[in-house]
Amino acid sequence: MLYLYAQQDAEQLAPLLRQALPDIDLAVWPQEVDGAAVRYTVVWNPPEGFFARFPRLEAVFALGAGVDRLLARADLPPTLPVIRLTDAGMAQQMAEYALYGVLRYQRQFDVYQRQQAERRWQPQRPRLAHEVRVGVLGLGAIGAVVATTLAGRGYAVSGWSRSPRQLPGVDCRHGSAALDTLLAETDVLVSLLPSTPETRGLLDRERLARLPRGAAVINAGRGEQLDQEALLELLDAGQLRFAQLDVFAREPLAVEHPLWTHPSVTVTPHIAAITLPGPAVEQIAASLRALQGGARPEGWVDRQRAY
Amino acid sequence: MLYLYAQQDAEQLAPLLRQALPDIDLAVWPQEVDGAAVRYTVVWNPPEGFFARFPRLEAVFALGAGVDRLLARADLPPTLPVIRLTDAGMAQQMAEYALYGVLRYQRQFDVYQRQQAERRWQPQRPRLAHEVRVGVLGLGAIGAVVATTLAGRGYAVSGWSRSPRQLPGVDCRHGSAALDTLLAETDVLVSLLPSTPETRGLLDRERLARLPRGAAVINAGRGEQLDQEALLELLDAGQLRFAQLDVFAREPLAVEHPLWTHPSVTVTPHIAAITLPGPAVEQIAASLRALQGGARPEGWVDRQRAY
Repeated sequence: MLYLYAQQDAEQLAPLLRQALPDIDLAVWPQEVDGAAVRYTVVWNPPEGFFARFPRLEAVFALGAGVDRLLARADLPPTLPVIRLTDAGMAQQMAEYALYGVLRYQRQFDVYQRQQAERRWQPQRPRLAHEVRVGVLGLGAIGAVVATTLAGRGYAVSGWSRSPRQLPGVDCRHGSAALDTLLAETDVLVSLLPSTPETRGLLDRERLARLPRGAAVINAGRGEQLDQEALLELLDAGQLRFAQLDVFAREPLAVEHPLWTHPSVTVTPHIAAITLPGPAVEQIAASLRALQGGARPEGWVDRQRAY
Repeated sequence: MLYLYAQQDAEQLAPLLRQALPDIDLAVWPQEVDGAAVRYTVVWNPPEGFFARFPRLEAVFALGAGVDRLLARADLPPTLPVIRLTDAGMAQQMAEYALYGVLRYQRQFDVYQRQQAERRWQPQRPRLAHEVRVGVLGLGAIGAVVATTLAGRGYAVSGWSRSPRQLPGVDCRHGSAALDTLLAETDVLVSLLPSTPETRGLLDRERLARLPRGAAVINAGRGEQLDQEALLELLDAGQLRFAQLDVFAREPLAVEHPLWTHPSVTVTPHIAAITLPGPAVEQIAASLRALQGGARPEGWVDRQRAY
């Protein structure tokens, strides 16, 4: 039996799961079932104690790419296989989100917005795509699409990841020493990193200050990676030009938080790349078949590295 | 002899022209020359009476894609060949400008901007690229690149032009009857039309009102095509969601004009696609060689249709 917990999305997901996995019984929260009969769960933020109800679970499928909150739960059995979504329709959305911020930087829509407020007609010196250096942090299934999409639009793209990667048209670097160099050569930083013990607090004051004067920061990874106070100070000092933030240390962003009102900050409510029911169910069904066949599916979470 | 009039851009253009056309004498305004020795001119907004100084001109090369102002001049000999720029680096810039507006619409950055002003954390129902219908008016060298770029990003793109065109992935239509249908099926209108007797006033109140409720308008063609008063009224009525305007009936836009301050209008100062010296000189040199060889170069303006 497969048990689904997905709040308001369950209505869309349940029929798709039934169609994709016709031979597997599906139960949907808050349906009462014999917990010992449940082998798999598909979840998005289930309530505390959820996993204790299912003593014979063989795998949990997360309805998202980031599993930091799931892995931090006390009730998640330490050796239970966790499978996260990798692309599942999120990569294109993330590429769109990043591209918007990069275009805003390159084509100076932020500058023209300020000029408009002053009713000032003043063409700026144009900057061509190849003159803009974009640094993409995180080159997994999503980051790789973002980096190659931006490279395809003509930007000078560098990418950074924990382990070595190769991507067409992207200058790929890895390891912590390479990060400082990359930051110093980046006009627009796009952070798409998962939240892991290694990445939490990665974009601290010192690293943000390595970005060249006038750089922009796009964060659509996890809020815990970015020192929000340092970011605000660097924006105030004119060291950074603008920030486009989709994720925050605490979500929803508190009403009184200064990020809401800073003139150089764009706040979006964690919408850069949302889970699409169709592609998500497709990936989950394929992963479940792989597990049944004894294979390790795409999206298998290494509990050590935490993604 | 080739005579260059390009105000502040002359400094960059002159050495490029000398390099590209080493066998042709180059004079640069305000240099005094024997007017009868000048066969070609390369111009951007030359002063009144300019052409009268050169009685033996064989061709004039415009440093832009739009030649409406040039053709309207009383001193331009009526049969003098006029060659305009076609792509010359402008197509990619225009694609960027349009893509920014289309992303703003699709990913609802305008909605999130309003929510941010209210410190409101409220994810909107997402819209995928293929669910957004973009209508591109004008499918010349620039419009074709804009339309295919947007289609390549997954948008449902229709294009409209005076005469039939075929473009991969773009639903191409032509002729005035087809325009009304296209408008009714367009979420984001991108106008890139040249200013000609046929296109002036084309986007009048009636045609703008054909766009579905909540549509957006991007104008980077010429300001004369768009009824600015009707646009403002449709925005105020909530019939249109936003406008991104690079061109205006009168430029620079007058300080007191209500477009500057309308919350749903983005004003940019005619910067969507500027002439790049390198690609411009390349095209001019190739066109001049074609003329010398008796051929009709790319960018040859049909004085009747006015582009």
